[in-house]
Amino acid sequence: MERSRLIGAMQEILGPDGVIHEREQLRTYECDGLMNYRVIPDLVVLPESAEQVQNVVRLCYEEGIPFVARGSGTGLSGGALPVEAGVLIVMARMRKILEVDIPNQRVVVEPGVINIWVSQEVADDGYYYAPDPASQIVSSIGGNLAENSGGVHCLKYGFTTNHVTGAEVVLADGSVVHIGGGKAPDAPGYELLGAFVGSEGTLGIATKITLRIVRKPESVRTLLAAFKDTEEAGGAVSGIIGAGIVPAAIEMMDALTIEAVETTVAPGFPEAGAILIVELDGPEAEVASQFDKVIETCEANSASEIRVAEDDEERALFWKGRKAAFGAMGSISNDYYVQDGVVPRTELGTVLKKISALSEEYGLRVANVFHAGDGNLHPLVLYDNDVEGEAERAESLAGDIVFTCLEHGGSLTGEHGIGEDKKKYMPKMFTSDDMNVMQLLRCAFDPHQICNPGKIFPTPRLCGERPGPFHMHPIQKAGLAENF
Amino acid sequence: MERSRLIGAMQEILGPDGVIHEREQLRTYECDGLMNYRVIPDLVVLPESAEQVQNVVRLCYEEGIPFVARGSGTGLSGGALPVEAGVLIVMARMRKILEVDIPNQRVVVEPGVINIWVSQEVADDGYYYAPDPASQIVSSIGGNLAENSGGVHCLKYGFTTNHVTGAEVVLADGSVVHIGGGKAPDAPGYELLGAFVGSEGTLGIATKITLRIVRKPESVRTLLAAFKDTEEAGGAVSGIIGAGIVPAAIEMMDALTIEAVETTVAPGFPEAGAILIVELDGPEAEVASQFDKVIETCEANSASEIRVAEDDEERALFWKGRKAAFGAMGSISNDYYVQDGVVPRTELGTVLKKISALSEEYGLRVANVFHAGDGNLHPLVLYDNDVEGEAERAESLAGDIVFTCLEHGGSLTGEHGIGEDKKKYMPKMFTSDDMNVMQLLRCAFDPHQICNPGKIFPTPRLCGERPGPFHMHPIQKAGLAENF
Repeated sequence: MERSRLIGAMQEILGPDGVIHEREQLRTYECDGLMNYRVIPDLVVLPESAEQVQNVVRLCYEEGIPFVARGSGTGLSGGALPVEAGVLIVMARMRKILEVDIPNQRVVVEPGVINIWVSQEVADDGYYYAPDPASQIVSSIGGNLAENSGGVHCLKYGFTTNHVTGAEVVLADGSVVHIGGGKAPDAPGYELLGAFVGSEGTLGIATKITLRIVRKPESVRTLLAAFKDTEEAGGAVSGIIGAGIVPAAIEMMDALTIEAVETTVAPGFPEAGAILIVELDGPEAEVASQFDKVIETCEANSASEIRVAEDDEERALFWKGRKAAFGAMGSISNDYYVQDGVVPRTELGTVLKKISALSEEYGLRVANVFHAGDGNLHPLVLYDNDVEGEAERAESLAGDIVFTCLEHGGSLTGEHGIGEDKKKYMPKMFTSDDMNVMQLLRCAFDPHQICNPGKIFPTPRLCGERPGPFHMHPIQKAGLAENF
Repeated sequence: MERSRLIGAMQEILGPDGVIHEREQLRTYECDGLMNYRVIPDLVVLPESAEQVQNVVRLCYEEGIPFVARGSGTGLSGGALPVEAGVLIVMARMRKILEVDIPNQRVVVEPGVINIWVSQEVADDGYYYAPDPASQIVSSIGGNLAENSGGVHCLKYGFTTNHVTGAEVVLADGSVVHIGGGKAPDAPGYELLGAFVGSEGTLGIATKITLRIVRKPESVRTLLAAFKDTEEAGGAVSGIIGAGIVPAAIEMMDALTIEAVETTVAPGFPEAGAILIVELDGPEAEVASQFDKVIETCEANSASEIRVAEDDEERALFWKGRKAAFGAMGSISNDYYVQDGVVPRTELGTVLKKISALSEEYGLRVANVFHAGDGNLHPLVLYDNDVEGEAERAESLAGDIVFTCLEHGGSLTGEHGIGEDKKKYMPKMFTSDDMNVMQLLRCAFDPHQICNPGKIFPTPRLCGERPGPFHMHPIQKAGLAENF
C-alpha cells in the first residue's frame, strides 16, 4: 500500500490524533532502552481500544505490512525496535485499570498501564504486584508481559509469567482470542499463556491482561553487608540459600558499581570490594528468626560491616543505590553496555572470575551488579565510543561473557530478552532443531511473520505451504529520498 | 501397515520382550483411572530408552499409525485411553533417576519414574518434590507432566508446571528436541515447556525430565477442625486466606465423605457436617505464630472440635483419611463418578449450595471432598450401575456441576485434565476461535494428528495444506473378527 493511502486508512481507524507520520516526531520511536540499534518507523499509530488495535492489525494483515508493538520502550534487547517500512503500534494510550477484584486477588488492566500503578491501585487494600523491574516506574505491563520481566524480588516471587493469569490477544491476522484463565487457578487445553508471555511481541498483541496480586508481607527487613571481594560475598549468598532461606532479594554490587553509585546518588555505601543487599519479607516471626541467621552467615563469611535498615527511609536508600546502578555508570564511563546472562547459582564464583580475566584481557572495565540469589548477572561493560574500535571490543567482550555463561550451564539472557541484540547468539545455545520447534509456534500464530519480524531468531523459518496467496508488501514510498 | 508386519518391525526396535500383542495381555491397557471408556489397543510397546521411543514414533509417523503414550495409567479423564488401530507406548520401563544435583536443586529423571521416588531419593539431603497428587505412590512423572498434576499441597507450592524446568521430547515426526531450560532460572526463545506441560500427551512424548526440588520445611503443623456444615467450614477457609496465611494445604470433606472414610480406613474423624484439614509448613517461628491464628479463625467460625496432630503418626492418620476419600466411596455406593472442577475461591459457598440442590433434583447423593484453598472441587457423584438409567443420570448431574462451575467464573477441570471425558464440554468454556488458536499449536507440533488423537478437543482442526503427501494408515487387520 502506498504510504499516503495507508496514513489515510489509519486515520480513519484512529482519528487524526492517533497517527504520527512526520519524520521529526517519528524519530522519538527509533529505538528502545538499548540504543545500539536504531530504525525510524514509517508510521506510528496510537490505538485507544482493543477494537482499534484489531482494526490496525487487520489492515496490516490484509496489506501485508509488518508491524511492531511497543509499550514504554524501556526494553534492553531491542525487542521494540521498529521494522523498516512497517508500522509501530504504541500502546501508551491504553492505560485503564479495568477491574480490581481484591477477594480473588486479581487486577485486569490494559497493556499500557505502568507497572507501579498496579501496586499503587491496591496498596490501601494491603496488596501489591510482585514483579518489579528496575524500570517499574515507567515500563508498561504489556511490555513486561512481552519480555517476561523480572526484578530484584523475583528470587522469591517469580517472573511476570508467574503473575499473569490470562490475556486477550490480537493475533497477526487481526482475530481476537482469549488465552489462559482468569480468576480460577487452572484453565484446560493448551497453556498458551506461558508461551505468549516472554514471546517478545512476536505472537500477537495483548489488549487486556489479568494479573495476580499478592498480599503485602507483614514484615520486611533489609540489611547491607560489605565484603572484601565478590568471592566472599558469594560465599555468604551460598550460605544463606544453603540454609534454606529464600530471601525476597539478594543483590550484589562490586567495587566499580559502588564507586559509580557513590558518584551519583551517594547513598553512603561503605567502601568495599563487594556489597550485598539482603531483604527478607513475610510473617514477622519468620523474618525475625531468619534475619538473625542471615547476619550470622554474613559474619561467618567475614563481612567487614553490616548495616541493618532501621526504617523505611534507610531501606529506600539502600534500594535507591541499587536501582541507580545502571544509570550511574555514565558517571565513570562515557559509554557502557548492559549485559544480561544467567548461570546456575553454584557457578557464580567461577563465572565472576572468568569475567574478571576477560576484562583484563580486553583492557576494558566490567562492573558487576546482579541478582545473586538466582544467578542472574548484569555485567556492565564500560567503554568509550570516541576511542576507535572500543565499541566493537566492548561488544565482543560482552559476547564472551554470555558464552562463558553458556559454558557453565547458563543461558543467554536472564530477563532482558533476545530481541534484536542477541539473536545472533541463539545458535550457541540451541541446535537448529530446537530453534525450529520454537518457530513452529511462530509459524502457527503468524505464518507470514508480519508481527515483530526479525527478532529472537537469527534465521526466520520458512513456514511451509499455506492456503491462499500472501505476499509481504512493505509500505511503498512515493519517491522521496531515504526514509520518505 | 499390516499388523503382523508391524509387530515384526516393533520387535526389531524393542526386542521380543518389548512388544505385547496378545489380546488377553492387551486388555490390561484398555483404560486408565477413568474406567467409563475402554478401548483395547492393537499393540503395546515398552521402550527402555529415548532412542527406542524415537524409533517407535518414527515408524508410526512413516506408516501413518496413531499412537498414545501412557505412564502408570492413573489419570482420571481418559487421557491415556488407547486409540483404535493404534499403538500404545507404555513408559513403565524408563524408570531411571539420571542425575541428582542438590546444590542446584534439580533432579533429572526418565518419564516412568514414580512421583514419590523423587522425594525418597533426595530425602536424606533434606529436599523433596512438591507436587503430590493422591496417586503419587503409583503415578509417573511423565504422566504428571502430561496432565499438569496437582495435589493437596499445590495451594502453596503450585502445580507440576511450576516444578518442571526442562524436558527432552520426541515429537510426532520422531525428531528429538529440548524444551525449557535446566539449572538456570530462565531460557530464551518461546517458553514451549509451559504449553507442553499439561498438553495431555498430544504434543509429543517426554523422554527426560528435569525437576526442581524444594527444601523440606523446618516445621510442619497440621490440624483437623470439625464444623456443623460446609458453609461454616468455608467461612473458616475464607478467614484463614483473608488473614494473608498461605497454608501448605486446606482440604475439606463433607459428611458423606467422612462417613465413607470411616467405613473403610477408619481414621476416627469426629462426626461432623464438614471437616477441614489445615497444614502449615515453613520456618518454625512462622508456623508457630500462624498456627495460632488458624486455630482462632476456626474457633471464630464455630468449629465444634479442633484436633492438632501431636506427632507424625497422627498427621499421617489425618492424611490417610483424606487421601482414601475417593476409593472409600465404594463402601457406600456401588458406583461413583469423580468430578473435577474449579471456581474462584469466593464462589465456593454458592457453588456448594447449587451442587446440593442439583443432588436433590437428580435424587443422587454427591459427596464433596476438595482442595478448598484454591477452589478446586472434587464432587463424587454416587450411583448404581445396576439401576437402569442411573449411570446416565449421574453423568448428566456431573455435567451440570461443571456447568455450574463455569457460570461462576470457574473452569472445566482443576487438575484431572480434559482427555476423552470432557472434550464435549470444551465449547461451553471456549469460543471456537479460542479453541482454534490452541489447535494451531497442535497443528504446528503434530499436523497429521497421530499423537494421542481425539483427546481434549471435540472437533479436531484441519491443519491446512502441508508440504508432501501424508495419509493416516491405521493398523490393517488380517481379516480377523472384531479387534483382531
